[in-house]
Amino acid sequence: MAGSNHRNRFRNIDNTGFGPNSSVEGGRLINPDGSTNLRKRGLPIWERISIYHTLLRMDRGPFFFWIFLFYTSINVVFASIYFFIGVNNLSGIDPAQTAFQQFTAAFFFSSQTLTTVGYGHVAPSGMMTNIVASTESLLGILAFAVVTGLIYGRFSRPRAYLRFSGNLLVSPFKSSTALMFRTATYKNNHLTDVEAQMTVALHVTENGKIVTRFYQLPLEISKINSLALSWTIVHPINEESPLYNFTEEDIKNSKMEVIVTIKAFDDHFSNVVMQRTSYTYNQVVFGGRFLPMFERAQSGQYTLLELDKINTHERVVLPQRVFSEN
Amino acid sequence: MAGSNHRNRFRNIDNTGFGPNSSVEGGRLINPDGSTNLRKRGLPIWERISIYHTLLRMDRGPFFFWIFLFYTSINVVFASIYFFIGVNNLSGIDPAQTAFQQFTAAFFFSSQTLTTVGYGHVAPSGMMTNIVASTESLLGILAFAVVTGLIYGRFSRPRAYLRFSGNLLVSPFKSSTALMFRTATYKNNHLTDVEAQMTVALHVTENGKIVTRFYQLPLEISKINSLALSWTIVHPINEESPLYNFTEEDIKNSKMEVIVTIKAFDDHFSNVVMQRTSYTYNQVVFGGRFLPMFERAQSGQYTLLELDKINTHERVVLPQRVFSEN
Amino acid sequence: MAGSNHRNRFRNIDNTGFGPNSSVEGGRLINPDGSTNLRKRGLPIWERISIYHTLLRMDRGPFFFWIFLFYTSINVVFASIYFFIGVNNLSGIDPAQTAFQQFTAAFFFSSQTLTTVGYGHVAPSGMMTNIVASTESLLGILAFAVVTGLIYGRFSRPRAYLRFSGNLLVSPFKSSTALMFRTATYKNNHLTDVEAQMTVALHVTENGKIVTRFYQLPLEISKINSLALSWTIVHPINEESPLYNFTEEDIKNSKMEVIVTIKAFDDHFSNVVMQRTSYTYNQVVFGGRFLPMFERAQSGQYTLLELDKINTHERVVLPQRVFSEN
Amino acid sequence: MAGSNHRNRFRNIDNTGFGPNSSVEGGRLINPDGSTNLRKRGLPIWERISIYHTLLRMDRGPFFFWIFLFYTSINVVFASIYFFIGVNNLSGIDPAQTAFQQFTAAFFFSSQTLTTVGYGHVAPSGMMTNIVASTESLLGILAFAVVTGLIYGRFSRPRAYLRFSGNLLVSPFKSSTALMFRTATYKNNHLTDVEAQMTVALHVTENGKIVTRFYQLPLEISKINSLALSWTIVHPINEESPLYNFTEEDIKNSKMEVIVTIKAFDDHFSNVVMQRTSYTYNQVVFGGRFLPMFERAQSGQYTLLELDKINTHERVVLPQRVFSEN
Repeated sequence: MAGSNHRNRFRNIDNTGFGPNSSVEGGRLINPDGSTNLRKRGLPIWERISIYHTLLRMDRGPFFFWIFLFYTSINVVFASIYFFIGVNNLSGIDPAQTAFQQFTAAFFFSSQTLTTVGYGHVAPSGMMTNIVASTESLLGILAFAVVTGLIYGRFSRPRAYLRFSGNLLVSPFKSSTALMFRTATYKNNHLTDVEAQMTVALHVTENGKIVTRFYQLPLEISKINSLALSWTIVHPINEESPLYNFTEEDIKNSKMEVIVTIKAFDDHFSNVVMQRTSYTYNQVVFGGRFLPMFERAQSGQYTLLELDKINTHERVVLPQRVFSEN
Repeated sequence: MAGSNHRNRFRNIDNTGFGPNSSVEGGRLINPDGSTNLRKRGLPIWERISIYHTLLRMDRGPFFFWIFLFYTSINVVFASIYFFIGVNNLSGIDPAQTAFQQFTAAFFFSSQTLTTVGYGHVAPSGMMTNIVASTESLLGILAFAVVTGLIYGRFSRPRAYLRFSGNLLVSPFKSSTALMFRTATYKNNHLTDVEAQMTVALHVTENGKIVTRFYQLPLEISKINSLALSWTIVHPINEESPLYNFTEEDIKNSKMEVIVTIKAFDDHFSNVVMQRTSYTYNQVVFGGRFLPMFERAQSGQYTLLELDKINTHERVVLPQRVFSEN
Repeated sequence: MAGSNHRNRFRNIDNTGFGPNSSVEGGRLINPDGSTNLRKRGLPIWERISIYHTLLRMDRGPFFFWIFLFYTSINVVFASIYFFIGVNNLSGIDPAQTAFQQFTAAFFFSSQTLTTVGYGHVAPSGMMTNIVASTESLLGILAFAVVTGLIYGRFSRPRAYLRFSGNLLVSPFKSSTALMFRTATYKNNHLTDVEAQMTVALHVTENGKIVTRFYQLPLEISKINSLALSWTIVHPINEESPLYNFTEEDIKNSKMEVIVTIKAFDDHFSNVVMQRTSYTYNQVVFGGRFLPMFERAQSGQYTLLELDKINTHERVVLPQRVFSEN
Repeated sequence: MAGSNHRNRFRNIDNTGFGPNSSVEGGRLINPDGSTNLRKRGLPIWERISIYHTLLRMDRGPFFFWIFLFYTSINVVFASIYFFIGVNNLSGIDPAQTAFQQFTAAFFFSSQTLTTVGYGHVAPSGMMTNIVASTESLLGILAFAVVTGLIYGRFSRPRAYLRFSGNLLVSPFKSSTALMFRTATYKNNHLTDVEAQMTVALHVTENGKIVTRFYQLPLEISKINSLALSWTIVHPINEESPLYNFTEEDIKNSKMEVIVTIKAFDDHFSNVVMQRTSYTYNQVVFGGRFLPMFERAQSGQYTLLELDKINTHERVVLPQRVFSEN
């Protein structure tokens, strides 16, 4: 590999939390959504998974579907219990009805108890149904408490709401080139004390074995006070870069993956927020330059940020003899 | 511009999150309430807006109005459903009533179901109304969970509760002048480890093009241990200041905007709080001095902070040959 | 004042958030519970007071009393409304009853609506009562949301749960003396990264005017990794101390107040917690030494911390010619 | 003790929050679950215990058992009140029933009131029962608020979800040995900015008295950017180590305890999390090496972390003349 001699000058960082043999063929270390491409084993699933956080991160549709399913299941269970005790222990249900009618009546009574709406046109009259109904209404209150907690948790979970450019560009920069990506917040939030970090993972052959090496990529500006518009994060490919003298071929051969972390203080949440993503070698554009994504509004009264242009770039020719050694 | 030679000595900071061409004529970068004078485009509004945070930051009046409107709308929707199913499927409503009477009865039944009050003098008797009522009571519980979350979120959102002086004063300071503003907390909260930051934005002509340049303004004291009374933040206009030798005219021509950020630890919330504001050139008073805003109580037992005096200042004559070059 | 020559060597710190003329005769700057002895004026009370935080910090008894009072008042208001509309619009109330009986019946109907218990033996039958009841049940749900938020807020408010010794001791220390106080957590919580800060306020006569001067008191150990047992915070009174060569008389004349702040990370709350208190000159014991407050349990299996001994100290004679100049 | 001469070169750290005489025979300072082996006395238990946090940290089973017990007890109390007032003041209960039947009817009415389900087939008819029922439904709402807060608190309490290896290994390391333990997160969470700290407590005889001395153990790597897989924390036993030249015997005689603290930022909770544990001398394996606990998945698409292998190690022979002085 062309750049390997140069690269040897750099200290491989071993504090990334990944090991040298965690490389995967065709896979990646970090998924584009920031999660780790990792599975855990050796513990039962209910110990490995935080149900609360799974429900917190779930999309809105499935979340409410699960709640609806849960509500219906609980009612089916209690309806069955009332049915087997006998609906003659529920005043207001005609015991002369068919079994199906009795079951649906029990089902609706259950739902009225679980939600504590309790109309009372059907009410428990026997000892057993009273005990079951009393338990069910407590269960309803507890379930409601859980749902309240989940919904509040979903609302209030601090998130950075960042969009990233789809590509990682190799752009002309000063008299050389630089790796660049772009980010912007897409909600009406505002980040301050924003820090960026770029780590590169290279899968290289050492002593005939493929190992993964990690290097920190120094950034032109790694911290900004405030992120109102967009921010282009720039890693200059110069003598200080472990990628110096890499050819396009080298990048592909090493199955390069660039892991990106943004950490900031969000004044919506008054909390630190963090977002990660990663770019693999096939998301790299060799010779590209981002086009502006904000402009003065026609009225001149405000600035307009165009979020759909976050990845908009033009093709440019890279300066010769800088990225490759030919 | 008089000060531009001097100003060139200072490094233009490019990590403010604003670009050099974000300047607006007649507009401002930061609104007095601390929000960014910025609009976003290119994503549908529901992706661009965080409804939760919008409801969190809304004034109390509109907030409860929206809740009331939402409650009424849901009831109208469900009343319509019950009405079209037929009120003969609701026991306790006289089907001989007029359509309007039937609709209002359905409306009130809906509200009794949604809030889970469920008196039961009206109750679902048919299959369809039972299904709808069962769904509505679940919806009521979910809506209630959302409202609980919103109300708790409104309460517990960490805020600095800072008032700022309405004007930015150019005051005599030592043998020269200084830019000064004043801040105080207006609630019964107490801030510790309070940090202030002042950034100036100057819209200047470079190569015939108007660009915005940002400079950090060094402060006499930028961090205090504790903010119990008021704090006057002071930027001395000396050789270290990018505003050195600026005339009143220069300040107006450059459409100067001073962005102010206060960050502190609040022991109400046990959380970091942040508040921003900005002053534009037309809020600057050339020659003013803040008058004290606290005094010993007559009883001598406590200190009295007068919040309505936060902007009270007297006019003073500035020392000659310091602010202007004439 | 004996020590004033020496004291002049120290920089008066002006970033305490208190001004030089905030001194009060007979009063203090910080109350023992850590709040500031300060009143605010110039804004209406509802803008000056954070009701949420007032209810959060209130003792349990008054808190539940206010909730009960609020509940009763709301019911009285709604009972009056139902009464004036006429109880004949509530099915289940006998209109032949006395006015008092009618009012109490309306009151109990109101409480059944507000809490959404809604038995239904009394139910709204007229248009007006239906509208009022529908509004009241919404109000009940909102009030409940507020109470849930308050109760959760009370629970989850990060607090340090620190006890402080009642006295500030002047103890023998090395070959000189030191100011000492003691602190310990009294709940089953555990603090890490604990930092202490001591600031002294001295009310001194300068140019015939009484002004307050603040000095940081250097501590022997100002940060500990973990606070499991008790911690005695020590300010050595040596050449580095602004109190060097002060006599007992000097301390009384200057109405010395020592403000103490402890900041730590609490792993109960996973949050930073902060607690303050202050000692005035009349809490100072000249010549005292804290006695141990923890011991090995008789079984030898654990350590026993005796919280009631936090202020237990013995009288000792101070070394001569150190604290006073005689 | 062999190593004591060497050890004297190290500064005993006195900011651990434990005292020199907190040593216990047969006991330990920190329990494996991270809590302090400490009891407090001198305050009534309700002041010493944070009920909220006790309920937060309780296992799920006991937590719901306590809620169920609390629910039943409240209902028994109120049932007794209704019973003594007389069930003839509750419409819908037949006063001709046996006392037991009356009591159970009162019990179920109480549960319907507390949960606000309020069917209404039983309803308060007298003044006293109305007052009690009105109070009970308020109490129900408050209790529900408490439970909602508790359940949300249990969900959202930031935790590190770390597993630790059961043993502390003395492993060959470079040309000497090192103390090593291993940790990994067992849920689908991801830690960043992870810091480890190792403190050793040695119970040594000084002047014929057993005292406890604390030393910080320097780590090879004490901070990693990200913890995705497992992390082996390494304290090299070289000239920089207070354990240098210790024999196996020394370690046992000093009843060595190693206290371990991991602090990190968790992006599930967007909060700092902390977890502690400790290893005593009888958990030390003299001569062991951890075996890998993660591997490439057979499909090559992801990495597989095997949590049940966290303590898997093989026995190795330690290099001579390094750990012992023989």
